[in-house]
Amino acid sequence: MTEEATAIRDRLVRWTEAVASGDRQGILTGHADDLLMFDFPDTVRGLEAYDRTWAFFDDSRRGPVTFAPRDIQVMAGDDVGFATCEIHCDGTTAGSFDLRLTVCLKKREGDWVVIHEHHSVPTTDERLIGPDAQR
Amino acid sequence: MTEEATAIRDRLVRWTEAVASGDRQGILTGHADDLLMFDFPDTVRGLEAYDRTWAFFDDSRRGPVTFAPRDIQVMAGDDVGFATCEIHCDGTTAGSFDLRLTVCLKKREGDWVVIHEHHSVPTTDERLIGPDAQR
Repeated sequence: MTEEATAIRDRLVRWTEAVASGDRQGILTGHADDLLMFDFPDTVRGLEAYDRTWAFFDDSRRGPVTFAPRDIQVMAGDDVGFATCEIHCDGTTAGSFDLRLTVCLKKREGDWVVIHEHHSVPTTDERLIGPDAQR
Repeated sequence: MTEEATAIRDRLVRWTEAVASGDRQGILTGHADDLLMFDFPDTVRGLEAYDRTWAFFDDSRRGPVTFAPRDIQVMAGDDVGFATCEIHCDGTTAGSFDLRLTVCLKKREGDWVVIHEHHSVPTTDERLIGPDAQR
């Protein structure tokens, strides 16, 4: 793994640790003011709106929260990179569930900054589920 | 928009046109053998599995299909790039719906290749919907 890819991977892991521990400032660290997030229900634009989604998450905590990434893959160029992983979440009012995460970054002033996140859970909408769906 | 960003945008637009017209080869063009797709229901690995998801889509056509991207944003480095958009789909058995798309690319042998796609629809799972959800 290149030095840049390691930096992106480390940033992602630290972010998941911040989510688990409820460190709101740590969650926001390294996120662009103009970020675009495709969240579970809605599209979220800008850091302020992004912060509010974590207020909702924090309100849903029932005790210690698990937010554990697996299968992290990173691709880093000189100044654009991205990472993918699946995350197991437990300990909120939502119960146990898995989400898929894509994070896209740009290097600004020498530091990797998240400018896009895409969070999703597998849909249960029967109209959209093909025969290969593992369910 | 830089030359590289324009190339990525053009690739994305051509892909949506291939989806709309049912041009399966056009859908697969420029996709890596080892691509990772976070699809609506499942995680899909590899071009063969990716192709099968489009067989399901093609089987669902009821006539002319709309697959119209909007709000395309592109970020391109020298050899890593990504694009985001929302897509309106209509004309299949699923009816009218909107999806969110993130596409991540790597330049291989001088050509942009898709190595990751993340497709999702807003979840309707009440456990995961915050107070800011626009519904």
